[in-house]
Amino acid sequence: MQLTFSRRSKPDFQSEFLATILKANTDPKLVTFAGGNPNSESFPVAEMNAAADIVLRENGVMALQYSSTQGYLPLRQYIADRYRFSDLTVDPSEVIITNGSQQALDLFSAMMIDSGDCVLVESPTYLAALQTLHLYSPEIIPVPLHEDGIDVDALQQIVDEKRPKFIYLIPNFQNPTGLSYTEEVRARASEVFRGRNILVLEDNPYGELRFQGEPAHSFGWYLGEQCCMLGTFSKIISPGMRIGWIVCKQKELLEKMLTYKATLDLHTNIFGQMVMHRYLMDNNLDTHLTEARKLYKHKAEHMISCIEKYFPAECQCTHPGGGMFLWVTLPDGIRGVDVQNESITWGFPVCAGDPFFEYERNVPHLRLNFSNGTDEQIDNGMRVVGEIIRELMEKG
Amino acid sequence: MQLTFSRRSKPDFQSEFLATILKANTDPKLVTFAGGNPNSESFPVAEMNAAADIVLRENGVMALQYSSTQGYLPLRQYIADRYRFSDLTVDPSEVIITNGSQQALDLFSAMMIDSGDCVLVESPTYLAALQTLHLYSPEIIPVPLHEDGIDVDALQQIVDEKRPKFIYLIPNFQNPTGLSYTEEVRARASEVFRGRNILVLEDNPYGELRFQGEPAHSFGWYLGEQCCMLGTFSKIISPGMRIGWIVCKQKELLEKMLTYKATLDLHTNIFGQMVMHRYLMDNNLDTHLTEARKLYKHKAEHMISCIEKYFPAECQCTHPGGGMFLWVTLPDGIRGVDVQNESITWGFPVCAGDPFFEYERNVPHLRLNFSNGTDEQIDNGMRVVGEIIRELMEKG
Repeated sequence: MQLTFSRRSKPDFQSEFLATILKANTDPKLVTFAGGNPNSESFPVAEMNAAADIVLRENGVMALQYSSTQGYLPLRQYIADRYRFSDLTVDPSEVIITNGSQQALDLFSAMMIDSGDCVLVESPTYLAALQTLHLYSPEIIPVPLHEDGIDVDALQQIVDEKRPKFIYLIPNFQNPTGLSYTEEVRARASEVFRGRNILVLEDNPYGELRFQGEPAHSFGWYLGEQCCMLGTFSKIISPGMRIGWIVCKQKELLEKMLTYKATLDLHTNIFGQMVMHRYLMDNNLDTHLTEARKLYKHKAEHMISCIEKYFPAECQCTHPGGGMFLWVTLPDGIRGVDVQNESITWGFPVCAGDPFFEYERNVPHLRLNFSNGTDEQIDNGMRVVGEIIRELMEKG
Repeated sequence: MQLTFSRRSKPDFQSEFLATILKANTDPKLVTFAGGNPNSESFPVAEMNAAADIVLRENGVMALQYSSTQGYLPLRQYIADRYRFSDLTVDPSEVIITNGSQQALDLFSAMMIDSGDCVLVESPTYLAALQTLHLYSPEIIPVPLHEDGIDVDALQQIVDEKRPKFIYLIPNFQNPTGLSYTEEVRARASEVFRGRNILVLEDNPYGELRFQGEPAHSFGWYLGEQCCMLGTFSKIISPGMRIGWIVCKQKELLEKMLTYKATLDLHTNIFGQMVMHRYLMDNNLDTHLTEARKLYKHKAEHMISCIEKYFPAECQCTHPGGGMFLWVTLPDGIRGVDVQNESITWGFPVCAGDPFFEYERNVPHLRLNFSNGTDEQIDNGMRVVGEIIRELMEKG
């Protein structure tokens, strides 16, 4: 039989690109620097087992029955309370629990975007955010990202010329670059948004993985209800449980996202929510994070030292103060995709910069994940990638 | 600030209707016949705890790390194998695990429907299926449902006149009516579809909850790859874990749904999938189902006997051979919504038939959930609802 699919079903550049990388990742012999997995050394397996036991013994029926779309109230309370450490006041009624923050990004986008609406993103930005946005066919306008954060002058000009509905930002240890906004850039960018009908959608999966420097304020601190904040336990506790959230102080938008989520999948699995909450009650997240930060600091420093040792001197890389990624700028004329394709052949996949851009292709960039390999694997991988770059330079 | 939401964000009739019912359901003092919860007596809490312990002790890192979009292979294998009891051959590669079958319905609809495309449904049909379809603005054509199944003559005429992309069917113990298709209707309806470019999307949440009569064949048995099958553990094991699936033998459609799901939420929580799989390995699902069926048979018979005792003789109700719902047809001139509104006031909410129809409003129908109350609650509830109907008849 012959099927006619919806226009929506046509994969975008990012999806097709990902398929290549994912295919390479399925080979368990491969050591990959192309993904974004947290290091499994840091998973609290025994603690999660204890939490599951308590939840099922004390509250088993509730953990297995249908539950509310908004999510388990005690978990929303925990999330709301934790924002106090960031000088933010959040009420549990402003939190929706989602299947990872990826789903929250979709709920928000679906409720905000009609085809042709203008949306701003950093350039480069998180590739799966581009994938989500593409589902709703907005006009996407990338705003350049520098060492100190988003280009505020460019931002001002775009905001004056266009009427963007929202901007999607990752101000802490951004994916893909590892860069963070300075406090000054946050303050200046907030002034660009203030008083306009533009929402700021702030994604912050890596903020708690800071191993260097001082935290700066959330756009929520500067802009209050004008900022919706995405969060997740994926990078700090467990990605497999798929528990993220959105904080939304716009009541009408929150209600719409709830109705939409109810239609999509009723609610996020309550068993996982209750186990996660129990884990958070019976363990100190900050003690756990101290260990993870120490591990990631070591991995980042090790990867940077290997890059300095093995990559041609013409290569540059960012020096992130947290998170899981760093961003390599290759010498003139060298394409990230060529390095990527060779790296897969050699068994050390890295990810080219292309899918993180809305328009630019064949860019001279790589994204490297430093959180996941052993020290030896990082050493071997960077040596091989360095050789690949050198060979591409010689071929010229 | 002033927000402009997307056109998609406007709630449909079903969502607004549900909001009323859900509000009534939040009062824990209320005994509800308006929902669709499985009876929590049947939840295997201790067995699930044992399963979680084994999963986390033996395979904890895998249960907490990122996983594949398609779902945990051993669970897909279990699902595929179980179709053998229905004379169906399913390969694990044809199964996608989703956040309840509700999400599978969304994946399928999103990949198939462009605005204006024609889609067929039973009339009445599952209200949340209508909600999902509305997201993609098809032309929805309802096909009448009778005691023995879908109206095959009407179906033939609609299929001849229109070019529907697919039909959404619930042939076993349908929600909302509790009705099932006879084998003859399935065979005749299959002939209507055969050789045409129409997919059959067969939903089957209640098929395993048969307490009377003999099973009939799936449309998948008649139509092979022309039929995609939805399934779920929600009604037979636990809805809170949000684990459902779709079987799709159309490889291109399957690939598209996978890409789409990856964009929506990467994958369904792997911890829950592994715990569910362990539970299924270490326990006999059929033993568990025997208990649930016995319970539901008793509840259905009890509710029907209360209806016969308390409702005016002019009322009719279906006599389901399984599932969780029965369908009441009220006397001429009595509106289900009036009964519903009064029933909420009296603390025994029932659900009017309206949201299960695409077009008809103020219908003389109620959907009653029999799976969830105690015998006494069912007795009290049906007595009150009977009185409400009688009073409405007297007011005439």
